Amino acid sequence: MIDLRSDTVTRPSPPMLAAMAAADTGDDVYGEDPTANALEQRVAAMLGHEAGLFTTTGSLANILGVRAWVAPGKELLCEAQAHIVRAELGAHAALNGVTTRTWFHPRGKVDLAAVRALVAPDAGPYLVSTAAIAVENTHNFAGGTVQALDELTSLRQAVHGTGVRLHLDGARLWNAQVATGVPAAEYASVFDSVSVCLSKGLGAPVGSVLVGPADMIAEARQWRKRLGGGWRQAGVLAAAGLYALDHHVDRLAEDHAHARMVAEVVNDAAPGVVDPASVETNIVLLNVGDRAERLVAEAREAGVLVGVVGPGIVRLITHLDVGAGESRKAAEVLGAVLSR
Amino acid sequence: MIDLRSDTVTRPSPPMLAAMAAADTGDDVYGEDPTANALEQRVAAMLGHEAGLFTTTGSLANILGVRAWVAPGKELLCEAQAHIVRAELGAHAALNGVTTRTWFHPRGKVDLAAVRALVAPDAGPYLVSTAAIAVENTHNFAGGTVQALDELTSLRQAVHGTGVRLHLDGARLWNAQVATGVPAAEYASVFDSVSVCLSKGLGAPVGSVLVGPADMIAEARQWRKRLGGGWRQAGVLAAAGLYALDHHVDRLAEDHAHARMVAEVVNDAAPGVVDPASVETNIVLLNVGDRAERLVAEAREAGVLVGVVGPGIVRLITHLDVGAGESRKAAEVLGAVLSR
Amino acid sequence: MIDLRSDTVTRPSPPMLAAMAAADTGDDVYGEDPTANALEQRVAAMLGHEAGLFTTTGSLANILGVRAWVAPGKELLCEAQAHIVRAELGAHAALNGVTTRTWFHPRGKVDLAAVRALVAPDAGPYLVSTAAIAVENTHNFAGGTVQALDELTSLRQAVHGTGVRLHLDGARLWNAQVATGVPAAEYASVFDSVSVCLSKGLGAPVGSVLVGPADMIAEARQWRKRLGGGWRQAGVLAAAGLYALDHHVDRLAEDHAHARMVAEVVNDAAPGVVDPASVETNIVLLNVGDRAERLVAEAREAGVLVGVVGPGIVRLITHLDVGAGESRKAAEVLGAVLSR
Amino acid sequence: MIDLRSDTVTRPSPPMLAAMAAADTGDDVYGEDPTANALEQRVAAMLGHEAGLFTTTGSLANILGVRAWVAPGKELLCEAQAHIVRAELGAHAALNGVTTRTWFHPRGKVDLAAVRALVAPDAGPYLVSTAAIAVENTHNFAGGTVQALDELTSLRQAVHGTGVRLHLDGARLWNAQVATGVPAAEYASVFDSVSVCLSKGLGAPVGSVLVGPADMIAEARQWRKRLGGGWRQAGVLAAAGLYALDHHVDRLAEDHAHARMVAEVVNDAAPGVVDPASVETNIVLLNVGDRAERLVAEAREAGVLVGVVGPGIVRLITHLDVGAGESRKAAEVLGAVLSR
Repeated sequence: MIDLRSDTVTRPSPPMLAAMAAADTGDDVYGEDPTANALEQRVAAMLGHEAGLFTTTGSLANILGVRAWVAPGKELLCEAQAHIVRAELGAHAALNGVTTRTWFHPRGKVDLAAVRALVAPDAGPYLVSTAAIAVENTHNFAGGTVQALDELTSLRQAVHGTGVRLHLDGARLWNAQVATGVPAAEYASVFDSVSVCLSKGLGAPVGSVLVGPADMIAEARQWRKRLGGGWRQAGVLAAAGLYALDHHVDRLAEDHAHARMVAEVVNDAAPGVVDPASVETNIVLLNVGDRAERLVAEAREAGVLVGVVGPGIVRLITHLDVGAGESRKAAEVLGAVLSR
Repeated sequence: MIDLRSDTVTRPSPPMLAAMAAADTGDDVYGEDPTANALEQRVAAMLGHEAGLFTTTGSLANILGVRAWVAPGKELLCEAQAHIVRAELGAHAALNGVTTRTWFHPRGKVDLAAVRALVAPDAGPYLVSTAAIAVENTHNFAGGTVQALDELTSLRQAVHGTGVRLHLDGARLWNAQVATGVPAAEYASVFDSVSVCLSKGLGAPVGSVLVGPADMIAEARQWRKRLGGGWRQAGVLAAAGLYALDHHVDRLAEDHAHARMVAEVVNDAAPGVVDPASVETNIVLLNVGDRAERLVAEAREAGVLVGVVGPGIVRLITHLDVGAGESRKAAEVLGAVLSR
Repeated sequence: MIDLRSDTVTRPSPPMLAAMAAADTGDDVYGEDPTANALEQRVAAMLGHEAGLFTTTGSLANILGVRAWVAPGKELLCEAQAHIVRAELGAHAALNGVTTRTWFHPRGKVDLAAVRALVAPDAGPYLVSTAAIAVENTHNFAGGTVQALDELTSLRQAVHGTGVRLHLDGARLWNAQVATGVPAAEYASVFDSVSVCLSKGLGAPVGSVLVGPADMIAEARQWRKRLGGGWRQAGVLAAAGLYALDHHVDRLAEDHAHARMVAEVVNDAAPGVVDPASVETNIVLLNVGDRAERLVAEAREAGVLVGVVGPGIVRLITHLDVGAGESRKAAEVLGAVLSR
Repeated sequence: MIDLRSDTVTRPSPPMLAAMAAADTGDDVYGEDPTANALEQRVAAMLGHEAGLFTTTGSLANILGVRAWVAPGKELLCEAQAHIVRAELGAHAALNGVTTRTWFHPRGKVDLAAVRALVAPDAGPYLVSTAAIAVENTHNFAGGTVQALDELTSLRQAVHGTGVRLHLDGARLWNAQVATGVPAAEYASVFDSVSVCLSKGLGAPVGSVLVGPADMIAEARQWRKRLGGGWRQAGVLAAAGLYALDHHVDRLAEDHAHARMVAEVVNDAAPGVVDPASVETNIVLLNVGDRAERLVAEAREAGVLVGVVGPGIVRLITHLDVGAGESRKAAEVLGAVLSR
């Protein structure tokens, strides 16, 4: 099977497994796993933040990041299709009492006018106060779109002095770096906290890292344990993350090229389904209307796995475990189904 | 002082107080307050629903209504300026774990296209499922605007068969009835649950009523106690509500006329501040830009109380305790300040 | 019917209703209800605390008091039969994330040895930290028992310097004052916050007051609104509370005498059911084993209402609306059923 | 250093690491990790339950198990020193709104009389209803004590037909099996759900398993994701768990022998500090009064790590990574410090 449902499906490679087996470990609940500590420090340094925390998932990193800034009864603003508000099963409200209000942007972008209409810092004793704004870069459900750095900078200026914090859901931040040449640290410098994922495009089996100020991370570490995420010899997984940072960042360019190619092939076969120019990174959204379920089923029969992520929207994501040849083959399968 | 900050400031009148003193009472926690029971049954009957629950506040009625339909981790959709998401201090998330996503409409209206883009019933094990949609009628922060009945009906059709519930925040539902001639029961028939307030335009000192299916109300009664709202001889307050329903509904037309007149007077004095045609009920929003704080302060000095409810937005609400003459005087004060 | 199920069933008397009708009122959400303000200040002054907050119920006062001291994930200690942990429907955990651990005392008393075995202030990053201890005085489910002042003082000394706060659930604190002659303020001086109820023995229709430091009460006021308890013209109810404080405190001695008398009469008729010497205030617990349901039913047929509050335990509470003659008659009915 | 702070400090051995590297993996969020699935099925089968769920930590397994049975506002009963209520940072209340009431037993045992005094199934609309009871076997903070099977059976009988569920915190259940010869499955058969840990005595780097009915586990799987615990290629860790189940269960007997020996050596050196007969499994509690901090510090200087777990209580836990010789050496160090 050629599995393009998500870049989360990658399996650890032999050299990554070797790095895991060679890892020095300790009890991370006591803060004594040297490899977990090294990963946390390395990611924090890469992103220009004080400290880092290794978490089981990107959802957990986002949960801890958002709750650090948003007390129960306060508000987080984000785009309406953001992973935080759409794909984390309502954790922010269910576990931490976070109110969310959203703006909608067809490509998942920051909309400064919308933010200005919504934001309400220190709104007094009767109204909900905005405590933080979250941005996703690249934006998953909008199709891997990249946030423009100048828009992010304008957002930072818009909240300057208000006490409103900015959290970056950077599950695919390295895809943004590779696509634009803007270093991840430059994106990260705009935000008070950032989550990045090691098990999506980077190919580690498990794990994300949250970075931010040292005191915030120390509190997040305690909440990680409260949420049942205080693991022990985490170094075996952290070693995979370190390996991925060494070997799997720059190669994301290949995934991007494959995604663009897939879009071209599919659109040639079924014009109008996707604009190849809209493919900025490793995610392709096909607008197939009422053919979505059939496309998924017939592609599966032909050995290609893709998924439905919205009404009439089929998503495919290129990644480490699918090369150029398989990508092309998958595109031809999808195109064939759609042109039938 | 002429107090136009809100219609919540009304004081109980002598005949209302006499009705309160004459009320038959009992212990409402045991379900034995005959006057509270009568109020609950009457409002339920007026709105065509099975059962009612008398609550301390409209916020409490909304909290209980929404949580009946939205389990922790599920989602409520509403307009971004709705009282539920902006003026209830984040209770729905903080207390009941409710995720919210919002659409924005400048006049607070239902936007069917936006709803269709957001709504996600039974979204599976990875995505947040939409469990309910809330609508506010009339819409406070949008300026007392009335929801069109046919839009509400279309909304109902749009969620038909999906399991998504509709909750009506009808704090000022009787203002909608009086403004349009559409009976409150007709609006209410579109929704699975409705909250109405007795202490705003109707002039009772304390209290709202939530109506809905009998089993839902029975569970809400238990949650009312959990939230610390299970009062005892509530009949003294319920009597005020019954009196208000008898005597203070139709007269809301006077408040509407006063509001329109105030808008005309102010706009004559300071053209562009408000379009009198936009005043549908008893709320007037003045767009005064950076003069908002000054307007409030100078009006106060001249004996008129109004409030700021958004950037550059001053709100005034007409009500039972302010007659035509006082309303005109207030308008002249506001106009004078603005034309200076 | 002679209703001895609870002292919550009292109905407002004509002079109390007259005081309510004469009350000066305003919008309490804006802090402008003069009568509510007067009540809050008076109760705070009576109990020697800085500030007060008028709440719908004793449960709400306790919810707000406890959450002020106990952050989500922290712990409250209390006796296992306390109202806070047994009769507030789990609100402290459900709404505010408060962990509870309990000690058991057959008469609901503070058990210093048990407290010392449990208490864990500042327990570090791995263990739950004790943030507060709650004491109930008089203790409802233990039979209206009074906490000894020297035990309370020892408790205060035991937590001195640890940061652990003490909250007094004083729903029936005036019963303790009247029974022992120790002023309520003296009990209250031991605690960081105190709730007292106006609608139990004092006979007001609705309401409790929470007192504590001014900044804590200011925050509790905001949380009261978040919980849907931010009422408007609360002065109509506050006036009843002020009237009750003027006229219904000292007379609690009558309720206590009635309760003792009832215990004696019942125990004469059915020896062993209750030790009259155990009746310290206005609550009588009858140990009737498997006759509980029958006793309640047959007493009801004979015009007397009592309730079951535990396995084999029937509770009766004397109050303002039941005089000496009715109390005696009720006792005779209960004795007759039990001696059959 | 000889590290006896906890059996969580064990590092994966070379053959365990080899098993991890050889594991077949997949995306466990999609339910497609064959090794994680195999681990879940194997543990469920071993314990005689329908289904299993692989979790990051024992805390997470307990959080998911308890919340399955206890809705917000309902109650869990447990012993006052249980890990669930003392060492999971209040997660059950903070995240899931679970009220807890506790009994205290000096050796952490089930106390049927205490349970009967507390338990309140279906307690009606005014009182908190007991939904579940948790038991810890072996009991960590009580010193690795084993719950007697007949007491557990009596507990099951006591709640029969009441709807009250039983959850077993079996983080060290295999220690109980090895100490008594009672199969883990026999203990597990008494309970509705069971958590077991792979990273304590069994020596896996990360992970626990929750078992219970299939529908309960399916819902727990969704909540695991909501809590940020929905990992991806979990098979690399599951393989370590499978290896541990194959190779590290029976050898727990060695840890138990070492613990008993340590207690004997220390008590010989400092009589009265610990009764060796009280050491049932791999945990030794030393009662050292005000010498606790000094003992920990001086032992550390001498190369032995132990911890304080209560006032005057020093705990040491034997495990896989500390052999007989090192255990004896540690005991001699502790004895020497205490006899000085």
